[in-house]
Amino acid sequence: VRVVNTKGQQVVDTWAFNAADLNEFMSMEHSRVAIGRIIPGVGDRLVTNKRRPILTLIEDTSGGIHDTLFAACDRWRYELLGAQGYHDNCTDNLAAGMKALGLVPPETPAPLNLFMNIPVLDGNRVEARPPVSTPGSYVTLRAEMDCVIAFSACPQDMSRSTGRRCARPRRMSRCWINGDIHLPDRALAANSPSPQPSPRKRGEGVVWELP
Amino acid sequence: VRVVNTKGQQVVDTWAFNAADLNEFMSMEHSRVAIGRIIPGVGDRLVTNKRRPILTLIEDTSGGIHDTLFAACDRWRYELLGAQGYHDNCTDNLAAGMKALGLVPPETPAPLNLFMNIPVLDGNRVEARPPVSTPGSYVTLRAEMDCVIAFSACPQDMSRSTGRRCARPRRMSRCWINGDIHLPDRALAANSPSPQPSPRKRGEGVVWELP
Repeated sequence: VRVVNTKGQQVVDTWAFNAADLNEFMSMEHSRVAIGRIIPGVGDRLVTNKRRPILTLIEDTSGGIHDTLFAACDRWRYELLGAQGYHDNCTDNLAAGMKALGLVPPETPAPLNLFMNIPVLDGNRVEARPPVSTPGSYVTLRAEMDCVIAFSACPQDMSRSTGRRCARPRRMSRCWINGDIHLPDRALAANSPSPQPSPRKRGEGVVWELP
Repeated sequence: VRVVNTKGQQVVDTWAFNAADLNEFMSMEHSRVAIGRIIPGVGDRLVTNKRRPILTLIEDTSGGIHDTLFAACDRWRYELLGAQGYHDNCTDNLAAGMKALGLVPPETPAPLNLFMNIPVLDGNRVEARPPVSTPGSYVTLRAEMDCVIAFSACPQDMSRSTGRRCARPRRMSRCWINGDIHLPDRALAANSPSPQPSPRKRGEGVVWELP
C-alpha cells in the first residue's frame, strides 16, 4: 500500500493486525529490536508482538523521517492540552475504523507514525517538529502476512506542531497491497472515503484509494 | 519501592498496573510524550495509557541509564536467537507473576527496563550495551496511585549483552511503597523470594524485600 502525503505535512498513525488473529499486531517496541533503529528505513521489516514480519517499508520519498516513539493521540491527550469537549483523536479513529469492519482491536498498539518528526536530541530529549515530507511524497509498505492495516490522519492541532498536522481523515480496510492512499494536509474533514484526492473542506471525504 | 542492583549488571523489566483497573497501566509511549525524553530522570512521572501519573522516579544512583525502547523478551525472541527448547523470558514472567496474585494482565505493555543501556546513536541507531549501573546502586520509584508493580530480572543471556544480564529472578506484588528489592547479578536462580540479598546459585531465591 502506498501512502501519499498529498500536501506534505500530514502525520499518519499506522497500525497492522494479523487478519487471522488480531492479538498479533505490528509492534514498535519489537520492531526497534528487530531493525536496530528507532526510524525504519527502506528494506526494514516491521514485526509483530510475536516477532514476525508484517510490513516492509519498500519505498520512501518523504525524506525518511517517521516516528515510532510516541503514542497515538487520545481524548486524555487533548484534555491535558486544554481542549473543550470532545476532540477527534487517533485512538478513537482506530477503534471506530475497526468497528466499521466488524472488528475490535485488542488494544491500541503504539503506532508507526508516518511522516512524524520526533528527533532524539543528545541521545535522550524528544521534540515534536514539523514533518520534513514534501507534497506528493510517499511511503510504500508491503504486507508480509494477511493483515488489516489501519491509518488515521492525525487530527492533532494543539501541540507544538499546530497548523502542521490538522487534518483528520481516516481510512481503514483490509490490506491494500496495490492501492494508493492520498492524504490531504490541513484538511478538516469527515471520515468517509472519497474518489478525489484533492484538498477537502470540513465535511467532505478526505482519503483516496486507487483501484 | 527501591530496586537495588546488588551486583550492578542486572536489567529489570518493570511494569505497573492500576490496581483498580488493570486495563490502565504504565505506558512507555505515553510517558515519552509526557516527560519529553526517552530515558526518565529523577523527578519524572511515568504515566499510564490514560496519561495519568502512576510512578515517579525519585532517586537514582545507578548512573541514570535506563531503557524505554525495547520490548520485553519473549519466547519468540529466544527462538530467533537460536535457543533450544523453552527459555525463561520476561513476558512469561509477567504473566506468571500476575497469575500468582490471581490477576491477568490485559497485555504485555512495553516495559520500563531499569538499568538497561540502549543508546540512540546518531539519532536513530539503537545498540544493546552493558549496564552502567554499579553494585549496590539503586532506583527508587514512588507510586502515584494504588497499583500493582511487576518486576522481572531479565534472563537474557543470548544477546550482545551476554554474561551481563543472566539472572532470572522475578518478584511481584502489590506496590511496595517502602520496601527495597535487591537484585543479584549473574545469578541463575529460581523465582521464589528469599530473605537474603547475597548472590545466589541456581535454584536459590534471588530477590529480597525489606520490611
